[in-house]
Amino acid sequence: MPRGATSDVADLWAGLEPDAARRLAAAALETFAARGFHAATTREIGQRAGMSPAAVYVHFRSKAELLGQISVVGHVDVRTVVEASDDPDGDPVERARAFVEAFARWHAERHTLARVIQYEIDALLPDDRRRVASERRRIEQAFGGIVQAGVDAGRFDVPDLSRTGLAALSLCIDVARWYEPARDGDPDRLAVLYGDLVLRMLGASA
Amino acid sequence: MPRGATSDVADLWAGLEPDAARRLAAAALETFAARGFHAATTREIGQRAGMSPAAVYVHFRSKAELLGQISVVGHVDVRTVVEASDDPDGDPVERARAFVEAFARWHAERHTLARVIQYEIDALLPDDRRRVASERRRIEQAFGGIVQAGVDAGRFDVPDLSRTGLAALSLCIDVARWYEPARDGDPDRLAVLYGDLVLRMLGASA
Repeated sequence: MPRGATSDVADLWAGLEPDAARRLAAAALETFAARGFHAATTREIGQRAGMSPAAVYVHFRSKAELLGQISVVGHVDVRTVVEASDDPDGDPVERARAFVEAFARWHAERHTLARVIQYEIDALLPDDRRRVASERRRIEQAFGGIVQAGVDAGRFDVPDLSRTGLAALSLCIDVARWYEPARDGDPDRLAVLYGDLVLRMLGASA
Repeated sequence: MPRGATSDVADLWAGLEPDAARRLAAAALETFAARGFHAATTREIGQRAGMSPAAVYVHFRSKAELLGQISVVGHVDVRTVVEASDDPDGDPVERARAFVEAFARWHAERHTLARVIQYEIDALLPDDRRRVASERRRIEQAFGGIVQAGVDAGRFDVPDLSRTGLAALSLCIDVARWYEPARDGDPDRLAVLYGDLVLRMLGASA
């Protein structure tokens, strides 16, 4: 199975113990995705996990703590994936391409997780929000650094470095909103197109 | 006040009668934006409108009908705005630029409305969903027609016409997710940058 395929999403909770906590995290993700954080109830999450209505409280202090768990794990995952795509000694054009391909592919493959972690930021508890903000900054700074390296090397021609970098990431994030595997096909094909489109945005020269 | 400024959002409900229905639509939009459609209650919407908890049912059959009203009006508004931006006899490069500027600006100026109509499509009643899908198709086809005209005229060089057109619209739609007026400044400046970036994506030649 290809790295990061949608059906591997349960692997994300591997760090949670015991098994019941992992099942609850998976159930909470589905419930938040289907009805939104505020409408989801801990009763519904417990039942979806095949457990008692009060099971959530055995393992988590609150619904918000479950959201925080999902959101932090999701952000760490995508940050780890894009970092792993990067060869800091490589050519800036190829670094930008690899980064964008990894970032776009992640938002296609993990679209359900991505929607929840992108759209429910306002519902996070303060500590979780800080951790998530820190992961997001690391991603933005990593890509910004690649764009800057390309500009410094005369390989990119960018009108507004900071906003263009954020726009490129935004383009990839929005994949999670519309992506449907049955309709939109192979995440790898999408990733390749998005790599090309972002290099055009950056005015990359060969 | 510039056309489409955020504070003009109440104008969108001008077609609703009586005044109470307009106030309820405005209150529903704020409630859906703050807590999501499924968590919002008709009681909450009535109270936010300064009316009785049951006031919604005097003017609307259900919370879903209110969402439909908001979503259809919002989609018609953005479709009308981009159509008004287009001069079908104009140069394809300038047509694409004007379309993208109008589309991006709308998603910045109307970010609260845009978030609700983009993220709550699954909650629409079947008739409303069909009307919204029709408006979305008109927008996609209008932009697709401009891209095709540019390709036919040898002004654009596009790797995958359909997916690139959708990616350009997706880039603009995602503005609604992150845009905050106090932090992100003038929607016009953003619109100009986005026009430039999309022309780069389209491989536009002067």
